[in-house]
Amino acid sequence: MKFERTDLLGLEDLSRQEIEFILTTAESFVEISERPIKKVPMMRGMTVVNLFFEPSTRTRTSFELAEKRLSADTVNISASTSATVKGETLKDTAKNLEAMSIDVLVVRHSASGAPHYLASVLGCPVVNAGDGAHEHPTQALLDLFTIKRRLGRFDGLKLGIVGDILHSRVARSNIWGFTKLGAKVTVCGPPTLIPPGTETLGAEVSYDLDALLPSLDVLMLLRIQTERLSQCFFPSLREYADFFGVTGERMKRAKKDIVVMHPGPLNRGVEITPDVADGPQSVILEQVKYGLAVRMAVLYLLGGGELTGENAA
Amino acid sequence: MKFERTDLLGLEDLSRQEIEFILTTAESFVEISERPIKKVPMMRGMTVVNLFFEPSTRTRTSFELAEKRLSADTVNISASTSATVKGETLKDTAKNLEAMSIDVLVVRHSASGAPHYLASVLGCPVVNAGDGAHEHPTQALLDLFTIKRRLGRFDGLKLGIVGDILHSRVARSNIWGFTKLGAKVTVCGPPTLIPPGTETLGAEVSYDLDALLPSLDVLMLLRIQTERLSQCFFPSLREYADFFGVTGERMKRAKKDIVVMHPGPLNRGVEITPDVADGPQSVILEQVKYGLAVRMAVLYLLGGGELTGENAA
Amino acid sequence: MKFERTDLLGLEDLSRQEIEFILTTAESFVEISERPIKKVPMMRGMTVVNLFFEPSTRTRTSFELAEKRLSADTVNISASTSATVKGETLKDTAKNLEAMSIDVLVVRHSASGAPHYLASVLGCPVVNAGDGAHEHPTQALLDLFTIKRRLGRFDGLKLGIVGDILHSRVARSNIWGFTKLGAKVTVCGPPTLIPPGTETLGAEVSYDLDALLPSLDVLMLLRIQTERLSQCFFPSLREYADFFGVTGERMKRAKKDIVVMHPGPLNRGVEITPDVADGPQSVILEQVKYGLAVRMAVLYLLGGGELTGENAA
Repeated sequence: MKFERTDLLGLEDLSRQEIEFILTTAESFVEISERPIKKVPMMRGMTVVNLFFEPSTRTRTSFELAEKRLSADTVNISASTSATVKGETLKDTAKNLEAMSIDVLVVRHSASGAPHYLASVLGCPVVNAGDGAHEHPTQALLDLFTIKRRLGRFDGLKLGIVGDILHSRVARSNIWGFTKLGAKVTVCGPPTLIPPGTETLGAEVSYDLDALLPSLDVLMLLRIQTERLSQCFFPSLREYADFFGVTGERMKRAKKDIVVMHPGPLNRGVEITPDVADGPQSVILEQVKYGLAVRMAVLYLLGGGELTGENAA
Repeated sequence: MKFERTDLLGLEDLSRQEIEFILTTAESFVEISERPIKKVPMMRGMTVVNLFFEPSTRTRTSFELAEKRLSADTVNISASTSATVKGETLKDTAKNLEAMSIDVLVVRHSASGAPHYLASVLGCPVVNAGDGAHEHPTQALLDLFTIKRRLGRFDGLKLGIVGDILHSRVARSNIWGFTKLGAKVTVCGPPTLIPPGTETLGAEVSYDLDALLPSLDVLMLLRIQTERLSQCFFPSLREYADFFGVTGERMKRAKKDIVVMHPGPLNRGVEITPDVADGPQSVILEQVKYGLAVRMAVLYLLGGGELTGENAA
Repeated sequence: MKFERTDLLGLEDLSRQEIEFILTTAESFVEISERPIKKVPMMRGMTVVNLFFEPSTRTRTSFELAEKRLSADTVNISASTSATVKGETLKDTAKNLEAMSIDVLVVRHSASGAPHYLASVLGCPVVNAGDGAHEHPTQALLDLFTIKRRLGRFDGLKLGIVGDILHSRVARSNIWGFTKLGAKVTVCGPPTLIPPGTETLGAEVSYDLDALLPSLDVLMLLRIQTERLSQCFFPSLREYADFFGVTGERMKRAKKDIVVMHPGPLNRGVEITPDVADGPQSVILEQVKYGLAVRMAVLYLLGGGELTGENAA
C-alpha cells in the first residue's frame, strides 16, 4: 500500500484504513529513537519548514526532532518574527516558502482551517500541527498509537475525554480517530465546556465523571487553561478539580487496568493529581515518546517515501 | 576566474565583471533546489552565523536554507536575544563569534555601514543582509538574476523603481546594480519619498507614474511601510494607491511584456493589486526562488570555493 | 581513564583528577575548529537539547557550535517559548524531553540547583550552563584551560577575581576550580558585592584592588551589571570604575606578564578599559575560542565517548 494523501489536515477526512496505515508505518520508527545513532537518511536533502503562528514547545520540538532524525533540513519560523506582522497575507507567506522549494510545510495557526487553506494553494505537502479549536491530527494519531501499543485493540473500547471539550482540537481529532477505529467515545465536563452538537461528531456526552468513570477503558484528560477562568466558563479551579479533577481517590471507581492519557502540559493538582499522573496507569510519557515515531511516519509518508529494504528502519 | 572579494557589502563597490561573475555562478545553483536531494557538500563542516539585529523572516530563511543546502552548519542569532542588550559593543559581539572560528558572518543591522565596519575588524567574510537604508546587495543580485533569466539582457533596458525610495536599501542597491549592467533606471514616487541627490546615483527621477509607465521594460515596486504614514510622508494609503498603486487598469498603459517585480512582503491593495501581483507579468515568486540560488552562490564564493568537477552542481 | 560522571553540574563536586581529565580531553578538540572541515562524527545521530530559561547568546552559541561540530542534532528551547509559561513544572518539561530520547540536556536556569534537580530525575546526562548565582562549570573549565595553555601550570599561581562576586556563578565555579588545581584565589570588590563566608570557599578577600594587584599572576574581571545600580550595591558606575576598573594606568602596578581574563560581555569603560581589554595581557578572545573546545570535550565525555583511533581528533 502507498499513502495516497498529499497532506495531513485532520482525522475527519481520513478513512479507517488510512489511519491504520499511518499507525503501522509508525511501528517502524519507534526503534530508530532507541538506537545509539538515532538517524536514518530517508529525508536527506529535503527541507521541512515548521511555521508556527502560535507558541509551542512540545509539538514544535517533537516535529523538529522527527525531521532531524529523518535527516531533513529544518527551518523554524515563529509568528513573532514572521513577515505577517508587516501585513503579508498567510497565502503570500506560504507561497514564498514554496518558492524556496520546501518539501513539507508543518503549520500551526490559531485560525481553524488555515492549514486546509494552505494545502489548497500550495504544491507541497502540508501537515496540520494544530488549527484553532479544530483539529490536531498528529496528537490524535499518537494517542491512537499509544493505545494500540498498550491495549492492542480499539473495537469495543470505551474512551472518556474529560475537560474543556469546547476549546480542544485534541478532543475533536480524537473523537474522529477513536470512533473510526471502533472505540466508543464519551466527552465529559461542565456543560459550559461541552459544545452543542457534540453528538453529531459521534460522541456521547456526560456531565458526571464519577458516573462515567467505572465504564471506561481509557481516560483522556485535557488541560484546563486557567485563562478560561476569567471568561466565566467555570467558577474556580478548585471547583473544577472537585468535580472533574482525577485523584487517586476518584480512580478507585475506575477499572484496575484503565489507561490514563493527557496531551500535556499538565496542570498538576487541577485536572490530575501527581499520584495519578505518575502512576502505573498513566501513559503520558509514552504519548510523548510515540509522538516522535508518529510524526516521523507522517513526514516520511508525505515526503513520498515507501518502506524499502534500503531505508527501512 | 576566481572571486577576489572577501566580503559582500554592497553593489556600489562591485565592478560590472564581479556582478556578472556572481550571476553566472548562481546559474549552477538553481538546479540544486530542483533536485529530490537538495544538498551539495560544498560547505560541509563550515560554520555560517546569521546575526540579525532587525527582524526578518524571508531574508533570514533564504540565507538559512542556502547555507543548509550547501551543507554548512548554521547558527541564528537575533538581536532580541543578543548580548548587545547587555551593553556589549557590536565589535565585541562579532569578535566573539570570530573567536569561535566561524567561516562566514551574515549580518543585518539598522545602522548603515555596520557590515562594512564589521568587515574591517573581522578576519572572516561578511555578507551584508541589509544595513539601514543603505544597501541590500543579495536582494539586488537576485533581482538582476531574475531579469537575466527572464529577459536575457540588461543593455538599454529601462527599469522603474516605484515607491518609498528614501528609506529603501533595495532601491539603492538596485540602482547601482542595474546601471552598472547597462540598464537605465528611473525612480518614481511622491517627492517626500525621493531623496535629494538621487541623480548622483545614476538614476533619473519621476513623480508621475502614469507618464513613466509606458516606457518601462521592468517595473519594480517597493513596499509602502504603513508606519511611515504617521511621519507625514504621504497623506493616506488611499491617496498613495491612487497615484502610485499598480492596478490592472493602470497596467494598460504599460508595454505588453513588461516585467513586474516586488521584493516583498506585499501590501496587496496598496502598492500593487492582486491581479497584477499574481498576473503573467509578475516575477515576484521567481525572485524568491532565485534568491536562494544567488545566496548559495555568494556564500560559496566567499567561503573560498571554486567550481570543480567534484563539487560542481 | 574513562570519565565516570554522568552529568556536569559544577566544579564543587569534581575532583582535581576529573578536572584535569576534562582539560586534557579538551586539548584534542582545539584543533578541530582550526580545520577547513570543522566537524567530527563523534556524536552523529545523537540529540542535544539546549534548554535556556535565561537569555544567552554567547554561551548558547558556544554550546550549539560545539554540538554541531560533533555532528549532534541540536534543538534550542528558550524560556519565552517554553511550556513553562503554561504552568508546566520544570520536571515535566524535562521528562518530556527525555521521553523524546535525547542524549544530553544542556540547561541554564535562574534558580540555583535547577540542573542538579533535573539530573536527579532524568536518565540522560545534564550539563549545567549556569544556575542562578551558583555555578557555571563550563565557564570555569574554559578559564582553567586558557590558563593551562598560557602559563602551563596552576600550582602556586595567584588569581584575583574582581567585581560583583555576590551575584557571580562564574566567580564561584572558578574559586572551586582554581583552588582545586593548586592556585591561590583572592576575590576583590566593594564590600556590598562580596558575600559573607567567601573564605569558606577557600578564597581570600580584599577590598583594595591597588594593594592586591602587584601580587597577581592572573586577573579575572567580572561584568558589572548596571541593573545592580538601582539596588544600591554601589553608588555609581564612575565610582566603581575609580576603585575597581582596570585601566592602563592601574595596570602599571601589575606584573609585566599578568594574564587578564573576562567572561564577557564587556562593559568597556566600567570594569575594564579598551587598552587593557585589547592589550597583550588580555586572553579574553582565547577564552571564547577555548570555550568551544572545552564544551566539545564535556559533551563528548558525557555522551559516553572514549578517544579511539577512529574518531580521535
